Amino acid sequence: MARVMIDRASENLRPLKERLATIKDIHSAASVLAWDRQTYMPEGGVGGRAEQLASLARTAHEMLVSPETGRLLEDAGGREPGSDDAALLRLARREHDRAVRLPARLVAETSRVTALAEVAWIQARTHSDWSKFAPHLDQILALKQEEADYLDGEHPYDAMLDRYDPGSSTERLVVMFDELKAGIVPLVSEISASLGEDRAAPLRGAFDEAAQEAFGREIISSFGYDWSRGRQDRAVHPFCINFGDPGDVRITTRFDPELLSVGLFATYHEAGHALYEQGVDPSYSRTPLAGGVSMGVHESQSRLWENLVARSRPFWSHFQPKLRKAFPGVLDGVDIETMYRAVNAVRPSEVRTEADELTYDLHVLLRFELEVGLFEGNLTVADLPEAWNTKMEEYLGIVPENDALGVLQDTHWAIGYFGYFPSYTLGNVLSVQLFETALKERPGIVPGMERGEFGDLLGWLRENVHRHGKKYEPDDLIAHSTGRPPDTAPYLRYLESKFGELYGLKPL
Amino acid sequence: MARVMIDRASENLRPLKERLATIKDIHSAASVLAWDRQTYMPEGGVGGRAEQLASLARTAHEMLVSPETGRLLEDAGGREPGSDDAALLRLARREHDRAVRLPARLVAETSRVTALAEVAWIQARTHSDWSKFAPHLDQILALKQEEADYLDGEHPYDAMLDRYDPGSSTERLVVMFDELKAGIVPLVSEISASLGEDRAAPLRGAFDEAAQEAFGREIISSFGYDWSRGRQDRAVHPFCINFGDPGDVRITTRFDPELLSVGLFATYHEAGHALYEQGVDPSYSRTPLAGGVSMGVHESQSRLWENLVARSRPFWSHFQPKLRKAFPGVLDGVDIETMYRAVNAVRPSEVRTEADELTYDLHVLLRFELEVGLFEGNLTVADLPEAWNTKMEEYLGIVPENDALGVLQDTHWAIGYFGYFPSYTLGNVLSVQLFETALKERPGIVPGMERGEFGDLLGWLRENVHRHGKKYEPDDLIAHSTGRPPDTAPYLRYLESKFGELYGLKPL
Repeated sequence: MARVMIDRASENLRPLKERLATIKDIHSAASVLAWDRQTYMPEGGVGGRAEQLASLARTAHEMLVSPETGRLLEDAGGREPGSDDAALLRLARREHDRAVRLPARLVAETSRVTALAEVAWIQARTHSDWSKFAPHLDQILALKQEEADYLDGEHPYDAMLDRYDPGSSTERLVVMFDELKAGIVPLVSEISASLGEDRAAPLRGAFDEAAQEAFGREIISSFGYDWSRGRQDRAVHPFCINFGDPGDVRITTRFDPELLSVGLFATYHEAGHALYEQGVDPSYSRTPLAGGVSMGVHESQSRLWENLVARSRPFWSHFQPKLRKAFPGVLDGVDIETMYRAVNAVRPSEVRTEADELTYDLHVLLRFELEVGLFEGNLTVADLPEAWNTKMEEYLGIVPENDALGVLQDTHWAIGYFGYFPSYTLGNVLSVQLFETALKERPGIVPGMERGEFGDLLGWLRENVHRHGKKYEPDDLIAHSTGRPPDTAPYLRYLESKFGELYGLKPL
Repeated sequence: MARVMIDRASENLRPLKERLATIKDIHSAASVLAWDRQTYMPEGGVGGRAEQLASLARTAHEMLVSPETGRLLEDAGGREPGSDDAALLRLARREHDRAVRLPARLVAETSRVTALAEVAWIQARTHSDWSKFAPHLDQILALKQEEADYLDGEHPYDAMLDRYDPGSSTERLVVMFDELKAGIVPLVSEISASLGEDRAAPLRGAFDEAAQEAFGREIISSFGYDWSRGRQDRAVHPFCINFGDPGDVRITTRFDPELLSVGLFATYHEAGHALYEQGVDPSYSRTPLAGGVSMGVHESQSRLWENLVARSRPFWSHFQPKLRKAFPGVLDGVDIETMYRAVNAVRPSEVRTEADELTYDLHVLLRFELEVGLFEGNLTVADLPEAWNTKMEEYLGIVPENDALGVLQDTHWAIGYFGYFPSYTLGNVLSVQLFETALKERPGIVPGMERGEFGDLLGWLRENVHRHGKKYEPDDLIAHSTGRPPDTAPYLRYLESKFGELYGLKPL
């Protein structure tokens, strides 16, 4: 009997699931249009594309908030706790409840305005001309503040965070950043005071872009990136994107022909995101369960492969000889240890995506504080360039040469991603917590890395993180896979140990 | 007063226009997804993409047939005859009336089935394995026959034609093809009987693909193709595609490294389509007036640039020296006249897209007759390979070596484009009618071509064809621009004169 009842119950969800699948498809279509805009679209397409994206956003929104969807969600009742269907209903109801509070006009307008702003941002960054971008950002901020008003969180910025990291809050992030600041700033100061030779020098030279691309492809193939379900293209700002199922997960990269680290680590980073998406249970496709659970967990995957794998000694012990072969003549005399020190050279710098592992979170902290200031009303768009430079000097001791290397460097604001930046640091914190657990449970991981094999690591991540998609809340997923809630302590210990040894700060 | 009334009237159309714009945007989004599928999508994306396209098709359809759209169309009343708004209403009502007769399920299913069939067709063609494609074609044909039933034309095939060439009919096409057959078949026979040396030999050799692409790009740039509003990529089956406005009109090409004509003429052909779309009045964007008026007129543009321009003596008198420079060593000793004879060599062959100008329409005739047979029920999918080969032998005197070079060669059936093929021949007929008029009205066209300049020709086409978009019915557009209805006589005279001279059939 129970079996029959469950079958009937699941039968009842079919109309709801079909509706949610259609909505997901429309969002996925919008993602294809976004990918195209950032890779191959000619400039003449800007206006039309903005309209198309606005129409898709409005249509999906209207479908989600329609009385019919509301009725289907209401009629669905409850499901066995812990089941996929229970999770699906929880997520669908959350999306629906959030969406009904936002007018369709606001959703469409945000889509249209950001589509145009992104192009303006590329222009502004190219010419380091803040004035080209500021009016767009004013519009976006106003729309986002309106959104926050409708969503009505404890703190006006919470509504932004919630979109990327359900369960996160301004209050909680303030605590996290305080802990990190207390641990990282003294480390950075100590290292900065004693900076000797430029350890990163081997990464500078003439690195043929095609060779960089080929090398990066080889590495991420060994990570497990499946090319039959993805591809790699060039973009101004590297990203990973998927279209509602694990069958097509693409990454983009940019290369600097004079600085090897830019393209390589961007490739590993985006591949980390892609491995997550390619590993989600395919039965979740076209449902609210599809895709990575939060941006914090997503960044834990990208940072794990970028830093804990590709900035480690075991990794370079295998790949250094291959790298030298890939760039004959350029890396002569650079041995494994020199390479390890090069990719881990600490030097306060202007650009977040090119920052070393240790100073990285200070870049994020700066952005977090600026965003909170904007949403609390203590800061306006016009104040941003100066406030940016002031904080850069305070946390990193440097002032960007120009706005392209400062306030204009990231794409996030241009595409309306306020509240996203903290995910990077959350990701750093979680990456170490996950990696430590993986190493304990799978002793073969490090020996594998020394052979250029990553199956054990990917297997653990697939099992404990990837396949679950959005089924569990981020905190629950982490607690389940690591045995404890998110915690900054392992991350700080890792940084102290790694950079302490690298810079001889403490006798080991 | 009249001014105020017109303003009010146009004000009343705003909600309708917004709705139609949203529907158009969704179709444009689907076109972006189709472009991506045919150029860059990894194979793992096939299933998801089919669902996305089905959802977009169903959503746009439901929006078009909704009671609200019906009410807006009804309330819109009439507009001043000849005005853009009157044309917009005529087209919107036609689209609506057609759509309300089709169930949303059929529309979504057709989209999904063709998305999957296209991939199967690529596989089937690659392996020349009809059995891989036949089950898909069975499904598509059944869906299309169901569509024809709902649309209920004089002849079951008329519903297919109407989609591509409003005003066309099976009856009218039978007359057209009869006239053409009577003129062309004897010409082909006469030439085939006296085939001597292989005039097309200079086109065979080792032609570097990158050099082919560069040369093609140079030519279509001189035609007037605007790269800031388009791009060129590779695809199995070349096509031109746009996304609802003239700001982004893309073409694709494929190259054969051993046969120069394939890539070059495909490039000119698709560029002809693209010049049309890039020339449509931008104020028609996101309305039913956007885009080329019919596939027949569209093909008149592609065939005009491909044949009347790029297979002419004036064209080669300018570009032959450039071509020799682009392929150093390969074309030594090939003079202008030899090249002109090479690109116009008549030789019955298997593949339509590579057919010479004279035998081309016989390929179309064959497809037209097969499609009519399928829709009349005299032929089944299973009969197609044999029926294809029988007709090839009858009209062209050859039997394809395999199905890849026969019944599997075209993408059209795989994407559900029954009724499209006749547009190619209609296009050939119209291209000469338009070109003759243009030459009369702009005597600078031929001297321009001899200098590699095409501004006069493009200007005439822009003025008389392109800018009008879908405003006029195809027949009216042709009557307006050439002073007479579509007519096979100029086309037949042109073929007789050109190939008569080339093959010495009649003393000139």
